[in-house]
Amino acid sequence: MSTYLSLSDDPIAAVATPFGEGAIGVIRTSGDGCIELCSALFSRPDQLRAAEGHTVLHGYLQDPASGQRYDEVLATVFRAPRSYTGQESLEFSCHGSPAGLQAIMGLLLQHGFRSAEPGEFTLRAFLNGKLDLTRAEAVQELVTAKTRTAHSLALARLSGGIFQRIDAVKQRLVQAMAAVSIQLDYPEDEIGEVPLPRSDIDFARQELRGLQSTYRSGRLYQEGVRIALAGRTNAGKSSLFNLLVREDRSIVSDQHGTTRDYIETMVSIEGIPVRLFDTAGLRDTDESVEFEGIRRSGMIIESAALVLYLIDAVEGLQPEDLSRLEQIRDSGVPCIQVWNKLDTADADLPDKLPSDAVAISARTGAGLDALHHAVLASVGQGEGISDGAVVIDSQRQHDLLLRALQGLDQVASDVDAGEPMDILALDLQEVLGALGEITGEVTSADVLDAMFSGFCVGK
Amino acid sequence: MSTYLSLSDDPIAAVATPFGEGAIGVIRTSGDGCIELCSALFSRPDQLRAAEGHTVLHGYLQDPASGQRYDEVLATVFRAPRSYTGQESLEFSCHGSPAGLQAIMGLLLQHGFRSAEPGEFTLRAFLNGKLDLTRAEAVQELVTAKTRTAHSLALARLSGGIFQRIDAVKQRLVQAMAAVSIQLDYPEDEIGEVPLPRSDIDFARQELRGLQSTYRSGRLYQEGVRIALAGRTNAGKSSLFNLLVREDRSIVSDQHGTTRDYIETMVSIEGIPVRLFDTAGLRDTDESVEFEGIRRSGMIIESAALVLYLIDAVEGLQPEDLSRLEQIRDSGVPCIQVWNKLDTADADLPDKLPSDAVAISARTGAGLDALHHAVLASVGQGEGISDGAVVIDSQRQHDLLLRALQGLDQVASDVDAGEPMDILALDLQEVLGALGEITGEVTSADVLDAMFSGFCVGK
Repeated sequence: MSTYLSLSDDPIAAVATPFGEGAIGVIRTSGDGCIELCSALFSRPDQLRAAEGHTVLHGYLQDPASGQRYDEVLATVFRAPRSYTGQESLEFSCHGSPAGLQAIMGLLLQHGFRSAEPGEFTLRAFLNGKLDLTRAEAVQELVTAKTRTAHSLALARLSGGIFQRIDAVKQRLVQAMAAVSIQLDYPEDEIGEVPLPRSDIDFARQELRGLQSTYRSGRLYQEGVRIALAGRTNAGKSSLFNLLVREDRSIVSDQHGTTRDYIETMVSIEGIPVRLFDTAGLRDTDESVEFEGIRRSGMIIESAALVLYLIDAVEGLQPEDLSRLEQIRDSGVPCIQVWNKLDTADADLPDKLPSDAVAISARTGAGLDALHHAVLASVGQGEGISDGAVVIDSQRQHDLLLRALQGLDQVASDVDAGEPMDILALDLQEVLGALGEITGEVTSADVLDAMFSGFCVGK
Repeated sequence: MSTYLSLSDDPIAAVATPFGEGAIGVIRTSGDGCIELCSALFSRPDQLRAAEGHTVLHGYLQDPASGQRYDEVLATVFRAPRSYTGQESLEFSCHGSPAGLQAIMGLLLQHGFRSAEPGEFTLRAFLNGKLDLTRAEAVQELVTAKTRTAHSLALARLSGGIFQRIDAVKQRLVQAMAAVSIQLDYPEDEIGEVPLPRSDIDFARQELRGLQSTYRSGRLYQEGVRIALAGRTNAGKSSLFNLLVREDRSIVSDQHGTTRDYIETMVSIEGIPVRLFDTAGLRDTDESVEFEGIRRSGMIIESAALVLYLIDAVEGLQPEDLSRLEQIRDSGVPCIQVWNKLDTADADLPDKLPSDAVAISARTGAGLDALHHAVLASVGQGEGISDGAVVIDSQRQHDLLLRALQGLDQVASDVDAGEPMDILALDLQEVLGALGEITGEVTSADVLDAMFSGFCVGK
């Protein structure tokens, strides 16, 4: 498919499951002769050699010379071209011990395999025409998706959502161009100008602009945002922090060790992965480093996409609040005033607040929905996103869409200016080139290198 | 197999791969009707329902009501009894995104599955007679093995090494007992005493003592030891620390985030997992907390199995060294003197050292082998262990072996005292009972609960 990079088919292997202790660890292999190489290390070599594709064999991995056993495994055989890479492939489902998986990798590397580069399995799938480039990118986006929503968006890309939209645009431009060219081939039919229909150009522009405008959302759901909690001591920062963590059903919570002493954690707010910073934690750890705490707190606020500033609704705004809010305003970071302790404050509190403030009770959880919506309105510009929508997340795709759109502007002005067909064809070629690069029909080795090197090993 | 716990066959599901982002994440299901339940969530339900055991299908997991896709997966079908648990089972190989796996688990839990308890798959395998209890224990030991050697020892247990040795002892005792009983049944043949042959009792004692004596090594290789580096500033503690980390080929190294600021790390020394503490790091971090550093350094030394005390061979022993070495001696923790800077010290240094000291150069790596051997001699009592040896690691097994050995002592003294056969039979029954508990023929629900609750979920 690529005009630059040729497909390698030497046997590669990699651990495909995350590092750590688990019930199961998977080692993936692909390439010419990999089933034969694996058979030589398997306790039932003849059965493995003869196994049909998409079947599983139980046995032991062992050193062919000493017979020493490495692990009890299930071997799944994939025959070309019915595999992820399109090559013959074999996966071992092993016991999930890091030391054991490393030992097995050592055995494979001594017997004809080399370690796969990051993304090399997917690169081979792409070069074998199993995936276009937007789908290949979605593979890694799917793995790194931090929330259910991000995962759903990546899955839509993996299912070819972007490819289909780009392809529809390309087909329409190519057909329009062809229609015009055919007319030009018969000069006897000449009826003066035979312009490219504006409707086709407008359709293309609208589609590509639509896709390109999803980039911000795509990044938001894939990369997430940093949100800082600030406010005076006892305004309830830690309570809100804990409430948001507790409410969150996402698997990325502190029980998995992603938080460090409760200063920072990952939560999902309306499907957006949020890295939440509690500036309180910094100040409370050690009184003698108060100064350091304030300095770090300032850094956290400046690097945040949003500050939630907690105010004790019972005490009301204090001078210290005013000066801190002013500091935050000066830093240019958006800020939502969160009036806490709604449950013990005056009943008419909500009516008296400014329209952009939110009243909550971190103790009872009241007002949390309103806070969620305010956060979404601020960082997501108010737009929720529906599961399965087609949204781009890749900087590469975004830049190429911009190039295609610029090209379309040129084509449109060519048409308006009545430029001859050969000029028009040249400018249209630029548009089609950019679109072809998005899906990977035309791609240089450098681009592929940069893209796949960001992948997990084993993917 | 168990006389107490009955087998459940309701459908269970769990993520079986470690938490984190990876190319592949595996979700495992088992229990009555699990293939039908999974088929309802699969894009090719009829093919999945009809799939033979040990075959793999490609498709999508999706919500049966909305049709919304959850992931592109490979489904592997196992038909009873040819599965890990012995029940019908199905594994999904998914994209390795924590958020995606969680979403899929949510889908399964909404459609007839419950979350598996830790170790529940292996418990079912045990209750279905797929594994004896020593092998079931080895499953988790295999997963948590920290070094290649520990992994190899656990694999020997998983392959039934302990079961076979226990079973051989049991068979021999049972047969001897049967032979005696038969003679007693025919009193006309009576020739005075018909004692249990001493050779059978001696064989049993020797075998069980041999197994029981491997417990210390078993623990050592599975649990590992703590080793502290101590010595004056500039004696080269950090250099030795870094050298040991660098030399170690084990996968458990700092690139995986297991170390914290280089004060503590995991290395493998002669196959023993070593948690290495550099007390230097504590003192150098902050001069104002020097006192705290010394206190913590003392705690680390006291909780270590061995101290490597570094001495600058160019400067020789200084008064500070003497007082610190005395402190360590008083703490009762074994200590090896490591004379560093061999490369720049006098050439005859090694000859002048006490016999239990080691000379190294942390800079060039000279003497590192001697240091490894000295460490092995101290913590491993000099015994290396061969890959695949049968070694017990379980406290439970160790305690039952002791009980069986005590019972055998009683049986031997019964024989010596010429006790009647019915007394002898009763005492022998106690021995056989203890051995039966080791392999799990006789096991209470409490023991199983305690054992399997320490497992990974998904195992």
